[in-house]
Amino acid sequence: MDSELLIKAEKAKKASYKLSGFSAAVKNEGLKKIAEELVRNESSILDANSTDVENARNKGAGSALIDRLALNSKRIASMAEGLLQVMSLPDPVGEVISMWKRPNGLMIGQQRVPIGVIGMIYEARPNVTVDAAGLCLKSGNAVILRGGSEAINSNKAIAAAIKAGLREAGIPEDAVQLIEDTGRETAVEMMKLNRYIDVLIPRGGAGLIQTVVKNSTVPVIETGTGNCHVYIDGDADLEMGESIIINAKTSRPAVCNAAETLLVDEAVAEKFLPKALKALEDLNVEIRGCERTREIFKNARPATEEDWYTEYLDYILAVKVVRGIDEAIEHINRYGTRHSEAIVTTNYTKAQRFLQEIDAAAVYVNASTRFTDGGEFGFGAEIGISNQKLHARGPVGLKELTTIKYIIYGNGQIR
Amino acid sequence: MDSELLIKAEKAKKASYKLSGFSAAVKNEGLKKIAEELVRNESSILDANSTDVENARNKGAGSALIDRLALNSKRIASMAEGLLQVMSLPDPVGEVISMWKRPNGLMIGQQRVPIGVIGMIYEARPNVTVDAAGLCLKSGNAVILRGGSEAINSNKAIAAAIKAGLREAGIPEDAVQLIEDTGRETAVEMMKLNRYIDVLIPRGGAGLIQTVVKNSTVPVIETGTGNCHVYIDGDADLEMGESIIINAKTSRPAVCNAAETLLVDEAVAEKFLPKALKALEDLNVEIRGCERTREIFKNARPATEEDWYTEYLDYILAVKVVRGIDEAIEHINRYGTRHSEAIVTTNYTKAQRFLQEIDAAAVYVNASTRFTDGGEFGFGAEIGISNQKLHARGPVGLKELTTIKYIIYGNGQIR
Repeated sequence: MDSELLIKAEKAKKASYKLSGFSAAVKNEGLKKIAEELVRNESSILDANSTDVENARNKGAGSALIDRLALNSKRIASMAEGLLQVMSLPDPVGEVISMWKRPNGLMIGQQRVPIGVIGMIYEARPNVTVDAAGLCLKSGNAVILRGGSEAINSNKAIAAAIKAGLREAGIPEDAVQLIEDTGRETAVEMMKLNRYIDVLIPRGGAGLIQTVVKNSTVPVIETGTGNCHVYIDGDADLEMGESIIINAKTSRPAVCNAAETLLVDEAVAEKFLPKALKALEDLNVEIRGCERTREIFKNARPATEEDWYTEYLDYILAVKVVRGIDEAIEHINRYGTRHSEAIVTTNYTKAQRFLQEIDAAAVYVNASTRFTDGGEFGFGAEIGISNQKLHARGPVGLKELTTIKYIIYGNGQIR
Repeated sequence: MDSELLIKAEKAKKASYKLSGFSAAVKNEGLKKIAEELVRNESSILDANSTDVENARNKGAGSALIDRLALNSKRIASMAEGLLQVMSLPDPVGEVISMWKRPNGLMIGQQRVPIGVIGMIYEARPNVTVDAAGLCLKSGNAVILRGGSEAINSNKAIAAAIKAGLREAGIPEDAVQLIEDTGRETAVEMMKLNRYIDVLIPRGGAGLIQTVVKNSTVPVIETGTGNCHVYIDGDADLEMGESIIINAKTSRPAVCNAAETLLVDEAVAEKFLPKALKALEDLNVEIRGCERTREIFKNARPATEEDWYTEYLDYILAVKVVRGIDEAIEHINRYGTRHSEAIVTTNYTKAQRFLQEIDAAAVYVNASTRFTDGGEFGFGAEIGISNQKLHARGPVGLKELTTIKYIIYGNGQIR
């Protein structure tokens, strides 16, 4: 007998052929109905979610995991709002990006088409279920969702609401498949399912992502482990610097665009660090500093080489005093994960150098790394942040969920 | 001691950092000098190539392989011409594709940047060595070339000319690395070299490509196995149809955009097939037909199920009579490799249906499949034809060899 995955994957593939021909009007109706069903089923979703949260607490989950898992009215409203935002975005499918005429008279056009079936492997964030379903629907792709066991009850309740919405809009509910078997073998099976799955998008911690990248024969969009840095330059506005590092570290430490390391030019370290680190400490951030940092700020624990590599996803910050922008760039390109990197400076030349020489998906001057996000970039909800270089880099929104097809109009041309 | 590959890969990585900052003027000078060196060293390249061709003949290589391997003055001139064409194309690096202002004042721009180090694994075509070096240079990438053992002498001679050209233009010659060890282990080592290689592009037969796709942990641009079809519709201009299938099959059977299967609407099969298949036979094409084809054209051998899946790359054509466009589309989407597919018809509705419903990199109306090619599309030389859906689909030219970076200008924004 076929596994749950095989049965659902085949259904998804079939649905994907139908979906690719649906008009924006039909897909938008689907998004609207799903949003309505999410809000209508809020209490059953929150009930299921409290079971998940309780189970996680009983297993001793940390505060970062609970933050990713827990839903409330506001988060459900925000998921529904995300769908309406996607609804308002232009349909990427069918757009002919460009068309040109060759000297031999051939008309060659690049047309956006859906990718087909997207496989999502993710962890404990139930909002991924909604974001992925919405973005895949709008971009004409079927989706197979395999979330973490911690969120299974929330995901089932959300998937039921999604399927209800699809039915009401006359869209095959097979277009969205939730895999209820959250065992490891099912995930491994997905990674080899080239027959039905066109692209896999893992979303979660570094361990999950590396497992998928290393074991998958299905092409992968590698979403980002974010070991992000904020560099306070010698020419920085120090108040701006303090506000940016506080925001980048503490506004939501569990997400990938949160800062993990603060780099400070030695020229301003003595002036900047005592006040900024005290403020961070008051917000419950543990400071791990280099030797110079610890001379300036006695409360800092010693940072080890490993700290420079670590994505804490928690209330911990590594701090290093550097000899100006050269060492800052070198440090970031060496230890960073090419996700989001920020410089705070009033110096034009150093701002331009940082933008050009840092190798990362998103490079900021005078802004928090927390803006690397589909919504904040104006793409609507996103399905993940890619820090690979192929296909999609940065927030993966609607356009990144399509591919192109060349359509060629001839009148008998031969070569 | 490190292997030849490791040493050269590390050099390539270092060179890639320098290359990414080079101006178009410097890179164009490099392309010009390489073209000059190729022409200047024609006799030594042809000498090396005759050794390769002789060795291949002694090993009993088929005519298709010899066609891919053999160089002559015209082919060398055409390689040099390809470089000059690339020189004349705009530099993709640095272009800010779009930049927009968010409500919070952030300016977010998408800038094209080189990918880094491209690894090429290919077979017996020495022109790939030149095309790849030229396109990678212009797009600011370093390249590691691992061609087939059959072409090793040609490749060494060509690489020497390339390095001479780079030196004359003041570009680090480490930017182009030819791996002289053509053993299988070296190729496997390349597939795991994530540390130094950003993308692998295999180019050659289905066996090579599948080996790379299945074993590589480095992201792969899958270049195309081309099981391409020409469908002669019931409403076709039959003379145009004959000229297109003859061109698609015989103008260069060894390349991936050559046609392998002819599909004919039953409504015109009796009128079309006798004359067209006779013409193909006169051009030394072996015909393998379905039952109906063999009733109409007695010389056809019987086609088996396997024939519909086969990319012959040779003077062989599979022929099937179908019940109109539905069966044609079904057959192509089932057996094709999503490379290049053509319909010959005068019927508007069927032309549009074929364009929309065929899932392939390039879909043609009334033109030969042979046009799927970087040069023919107007991209200059190409590094391969992708028939995967991620990153690049169709001819992989300069733009497809870049990635993007988001550059963000703020003035203190926090989230």
